[in-house]
Amino acid sequence: MAAGEPTAAVLVVGDEVLSGRVTDVNSLYLCRRLTELGVAVKRGVLLPDDVPVIAAEVGACAPAFTHVLVSGGVGPTHDDVTLAGVARGLGRPLERHPEAEAVIRSFYGPDMAQAALRMADLPRGAGLVAAEGIRFPVIRVGNVWVFPGSPRLMRAKFEAIRGHFAHTPFVTGALHLDAGEPEIAPFLAQVQARFPEVAIGSYPQEPDAPVRLVITVRGRDGERVAGALKALEAGLPGAVVAGDEGPGPA
Amino acid sequence: MAAGEPTAAVLVVGDEVLSGRVTDVNSLYLCRRLTELGVAVKRGVLLPDDVPVIAAEVGACAPAFTHVLVSGGVGPTHDDVTLAGVARGLGRPLERHPEAEAVIRSFYGPDMAQAALRMADLPRGAGLVAAEGIRFPVIRVGNVWVFPGSPRLMRAKFEAIRGHFAHTPFVTGALHLDAGEPEIAPFLAQVQARFPEVAIGSYPQEPDAPVRLVITVRGRDGERVAGALKALEAGLPGAVVAGDEGPGPA
Repeated sequence: MAAGEPTAAVLVVGDEVLSGRVTDVNSLYLCRRLTELGVAVKRGVLLPDDVPVIAAEVGACAPAFTHVLVSGGVGPTHDDVTLAGVARGLGRPLERHPEAEAVIRSFYGPDMAQAALRMADLPRGAGLVAAEGIRFPVIRVGNVWVFPGSPRLMRAKFEAIRGHFAHTPFVTGALHLDAGEPEIAPFLAQVQARFPEVAIGSYPQEPDAPVRLVITVRGRDGERVAGALKALEAGLPGAVVAGDEGPGPA
Repeated sequence: MAAGEPTAAVLVVGDEVLSGRVTDVNSLYLCRRLTELGVAVKRGVLLPDDVPVIAAEVGACAPAFTHVLVSGGVGPTHDDVTLAGVARGLGRPLERHPEAEAVIRSFYGPDMAQAALRMADLPRGAGLVAAEGIRFPVIRVGNVWVFPGSPRLMRAKFEAIRGHFAHTPFVTGALHLDAGEPEIAPFLAQVQARFPEVAIGSYPQEPDAPVRLVITVRGRDGERVAGALKALEAGLPGAVVAGDEGPGPA
């Protein structure tokens, strides 16, 4: 990957996803949408409701990736510790954020339970990114973006602010083959070596799939992606060009 | 969690899951099954096809958790680099494993493409765990277990050797509430403080769900779990005991 290209890590916080009680659908959504927007997702992590563990991951990811997206653990109960983890990971104190407090007071009205204000305790220097169509703004601390765990709310918020992540899209392509991997492995490696700036993937399909093997090509330079696809096609008898590789159950 | 209780990290390798082109179903399966078997899953990571990145994660997880389960990236093509990453992470060389070579030669027969033998290059000291119902044994390197990325094959292999992970099961329970989180947050925190050896979780449900809020309790000591549930019920008017918390879309 060329320097300066945007990368991302996606962190999902919650004991309930690690126990499998709740199915994590946020990772897949964010991985897919960020890729569509031209951001290379390089890491996805499911983390427990544990401040030091969240802090360690955020502290490692923030300097390593362009964007860090965190989802889950932002409510008012004792097991909502994501913001404390982000604060510690970035070496900032957690403190009452007047603008967030105003938003929460306005949402809950005069009968608000005091515990709701726990959601207004943010890492120092946090910004609130408001957008059309969302009631609560998105919390941003440097390059760390914090989303709720609710898939419905997370998606609404991400889509409302997705412009912050938009980049030059990837160019992708795919070939479908009726072949086994061992037979074509050396040839694939040769083409990968000739086109180091594109990523060539090889994916055997399950026995009930309509195709046996899918070869994918992804890169930023359309001519190089097309060149790699042409080189692959020339050396793989019976290959069927399957058009865009892009997200979807291939 | 008491000392000596089994923990696990689940690592899934593949650029295709990070791009969202392929839906990772292996993390959920392993998280759920390990939890059912009494193992506390503490970490899940999606990793790219990148040897140093895989090595860093494996090197950090192996000493930190009882079991490390890795899935994906074990085929014969250039993008299958999981075993190289595991080897480097554990500080072992990758070398031809005679027993693995024999299994692969017997599977592919005399017309085998030489590239298939790439799958017989394992971290030094790797063991092959054979079991009834699986054609290829599972690769084990110390406490790191390596599974294929194919969900079908991964599940068959995991189930064939699951006895290696069986432990005293968790005891769980749940309450269903028609309440908001801010109102009950202080009370939940009090009960959590009284029962520190159980984990109390609070999960607001999506608007279309039949219940507004689910409170879960999980622990190893059935009496303490029952005690925490009773304390919660006593202080939460309208709570409905929902039986076992166990895996499922709550």
